[in-house]
Amino acid sequence: MGIKTAILGATGAVGQEFLKLLEERDFPCESLKVLASARSAGKTVTFRGQTTTIEEARPEAFDGVELVLSSAGGSVSKALVPEAVKRGCVVVDNTSAFRMDAGVPLVVPEVNRHAIREHQGIIANPNCSTIIMVVPLKPLHSRWGVKRVIASTYQAVSGAGQKGISELEQQVADLAAGREPKVALFPKQIAYNAIPRIPQRGGLCDGGYLEEEVKMIRETKKIFGDDSIQVTATCVRVPIIRCHSESINVELAEPFRVEEIREALAAAEGVTVQDDVANDVYPVPLEVSNQDDVFVGRIRVDNTNPQALNLWICGDQIRKGAALNAVQIAEDLVKMGMLAVKA
Amino acid sequence: MGIKTAILGATGAVGQEFLKLLEERDFPCESLKVLASARSAGKTVTFRGQTTTIEEARPEAFDGVELVLSSAGGSVSKALVPEAVKRGCVVVDNTSAFRMDAGVPLVVPEVNRHAIREHQGIIANPNCSTIIMVVPLKPLHSRWGVKRVIASTYQAVSGAGQKGISELEQQVADLAAGREPKVALFPKQIAYNAIPRIPQRGGLCDGGYLEEEVKMIRETKKIFGDDSIQVTATCVRVPIIRCHSESINVELAEPFRVEEIREALAAAEGVTVQDDVANDVYPVPLEVSNQDDVFVGRIRVDNTNPQALNLWICGDQIRKGAALNAVQIAEDLVKMGMLAVKA
Repeated sequence: MGIKTAILGATGAVGQEFLKLLEERDFPCESLKVLASARSAGKTVTFRGQTTTIEEARPEAFDGVELVLSSAGGSVSKALVPEAVKRGCVVVDNTSAFRMDAGVPLVVPEVNRHAIREHQGIIANPNCSTIIMVVPLKPLHSRWGVKRVIASTYQAVSGAGQKGISELEQQVADLAAGREPKVALFPKQIAYNAIPRIPQRGGLCDGGYLEEEVKMIRETKKIFGDDSIQVTATCVRVPIIRCHSESINVELAEPFRVEEIREALAAAEGVTVQDDVANDVYPVPLEVSNQDDVFVGRIRVDNTNPQALNLWICGDQIRKGAALNAVQIAEDLVKMGMLAVKA
Repeated sequence: MGIKTAILGATGAVGQEFLKLLEERDFPCESLKVLASARSAGKTVTFRGQTTTIEEARPEAFDGVELVLSSAGGSVSKALVPEAVKRGCVVVDNTSAFRMDAGVPLVVPEVNRHAIREHQGIIANPNCSTIIMVVPLKPLHSRWGVKRVIASTYQAVSGAGQKGISELEQQVADLAAGREPKVALFPKQIAYNAIPRIPQRGGLCDGGYLEEEVKMIRETKKIFGDDSIQVTATCVRVPIIRCHSESINVELAEPFRVEEIREALAAAEGVTVQDDVANDVYPVPLEVSNQDDVFVGRIRVDNTNPQALNLWICGDQIRKGAALNAVQIAEDLVKMGMLAVKA
């Protein structure tokens, strides 16, 4: 007895993590459908020790499903998520397709789980860099008010999906073997490089900003329900496998002592503080990979502004930045009685 | 006929670059002594097609030398640079030993070559991250006034010398072969990681800042001769071989149009603008490696403050960040007639 669940986009990096998390967190699935493109239909995945065949993601596949965890890309979501909703599903969508729509809550449970109640079938999962940033901003905003954030990101190749991981690994192998590395997905070689362009194609916005940067700017306001929070960002891809890092400068509205900041962060849901640089205690993406929390270190008062802080944060992009956040939303739906677990 | 020159620290990454640059730029050496620790004495280097034997760096080695390019580490500089000065040498020192001393000019020629005239035997070469940042700040400061800079760095392993490069390469090879990567120089694995601690040992300063960050803060004021320039920084090591990148947010004192900024940067000495993200024109560390200029791209008005800019900059750490800057100082000494080239 439980919830009839479907994963849309089961073969991607986030889809694979959905499977792992539902099992690991003992999510109350009554059944699990795994859906993907026609190309992947017929392949199998293992869930709770059972082999499950991937079905083609078509509108009828959602008949009888109650919950959909979706991460198959924006255009697939645009076409199929409304079909799932029409059939009575609640969809937690990890793409950018509906994030800024007025009727769609954009949720990071630690920040605004209350917004889940307002859903009309779709709940949007924010952009990964945004999620990782807003989790530690939440306790700061609650107590001191966040006025302005200046973010520089160090983003893993997993943000471009399984293909991103493969491209980095292949380039490193090619270079080691003395072969010319092949550049396909990313616009330039990513091995031993840093590329200040995310997403890797298109995504040009006003003023020279790129979509990833604009997502951080706009989604943060929507998640906090506060248009006064000012964010600017420079987003950079680095040769790291699956965890994003961010150097953020945060200006607060009220005066603070740095010890209070450290305590507030340590007490916050979803945050782990690692902040003792003398003993090499600070988060690094390699160690935060496969962890649930967002990790914060290098906590300092900005020497140019006593009302501002410098922080270094790391969060697993596939996990908290995508799949885990969506599963947490589903768990909250269950806790709120908005997805009935039949006795 | 020319200048009797010595390189102190000839075996390091910067020392090797000194040799390359003196040859490449046809520096008027009358003779060249190559000095290093007793351990390296007796080894040879090639300069202008001639084999030169490395001598042990002892005080007497500077007898008869006119110009010393020094990059053998802070403690070696502290011991030997005064000995060289006592013997009449002008020393361009790449270590942090004398940078903040009142009688020692701290020089980036594009910014403050006039300060060279005030030297009393030692001219200090700034920290690499500082040099790379101040070159593009110069035209902005001259015209609009730089009030505040918030810098996040993406620093190559070459900043830790040849050993840093070797450690990254060895770790990547170990991982590819399924071996546990050896962590020795850097506090954690640097391959596929980002480490927010520079220098890699010690260097703790007030307020949780590290020495590299404090160098950027203090050296910038000294180079510009302007204590009103406020800098804060978060310095991060990334798995890149030899070029540093920085994401900088620059608040200016006077209003500007972004086109004027782009023009001022493009016209500035030592700066190359690459700023057309739609066509993937922006600097990346791999392409800026072995280049002389500091490259600037992603030029945007800060959406949270019309008086501020976001910039992405890259500069070769070994070249402009160290050896080239020192050689340019030596060239200016010659041009200013402060090192006589005998006819």
